Amino acid sequence: MDKNWQNEALEFARSANVSVLATTSKDKQVNARVMQNAQIDDDFTIWYVTDSPSNKAVEVSENPQACVVMSNYQIRKDVRCYGKISILGDQELRNKFWKDCYSAFFKGKEDPAYVLLKFVPDGIEYRDTTKYGHIAKKIK
Amino acid sequence: MDKNWQNEALEFARSANVSVLATTSKDKQVNARVMQNAQIDDDFTIWYVTDSPSNKAVEVSENPQACVVMSNYQIRKDVRCYGKISILGDQELRNKFWKDCYSAFFKGKEDPAYVLLKFVPDGIEYRDTTKYGHIAKKIK
Repeated sequence: MDKNWQNEALEFARSANVSVLATTSKDKQVNARVMQNAQIDDDFTIWYVTDSPSNKAVEVSENPQACVVMSNYQIRKDVRCYGKISILGDQELRNKFWKDCYSAFFKGKEDPAYVLLKFVPDGIEYRDTTKYGHIAKKIK
Repeated sequence: MDKNWQNEALEFARSANVSVLATTSKDKQVNARVMQNAQIDDDFTIWYVTDSPSNKAVEVSENPQACVVMSNYQIRKDVRCYGKISILGDQELRNKFWKDCYSAFFKGKEDPAYVLLKFVPDGIEYRDTTKYGHIAKKIK
């Protein structure tokens, strides 16, 4: 992975706060939705909190392949990641990621509906149009 | 279609300038990318300019089903549309949509690589979190 670009892309991604997460159901119906980013690791593993069952949880279990886009038109930057996503519900992880504000959506850390989505990228592209032009840089 | 919500969603969508367009290839590989919106009609038909052949043009010809998301985290609004997308290359349309700035990408209005994507929504959801909360309003 190109370290300089990776750091720029990571800084941008962490500032974006949200992603568009695109998945496909088993009948090839594509779906994309805005998701709050719970955490982005240094290797660009992206974590989300979601409820199970939900359309996205069902789609991920049917077809783990996903594409994540973070973009900000005002500063003309975007990151696009391809990879696989999995649903994790082990208690240690759920404790680690819990925030009090999730109480609006879940009964607590042990609510079975409270699950994590873990996206691991196989490919990452970063574009900073004002600095580098329209062509996205492949950083993984 | 709920007219009040439709007008709010339309105003937001037109101010967004870009979309994330998600499509799926015939082998169920999902792909999403940031696209400049060329035009959004009153009925939420969305027009894009693209080059042919490109990955997205190939994917659209294999599977026309698509999902479009426009979002702005700063103002906590997003629009999500489900529908079908088609590739159009007739000269009348290409003349209508042509802008001089496209010369950076195409040889001119008659360049066969210069094509339009027309997205027609079957479903539209709009969310204005600060005004109406987290639940998206189905406007079509």
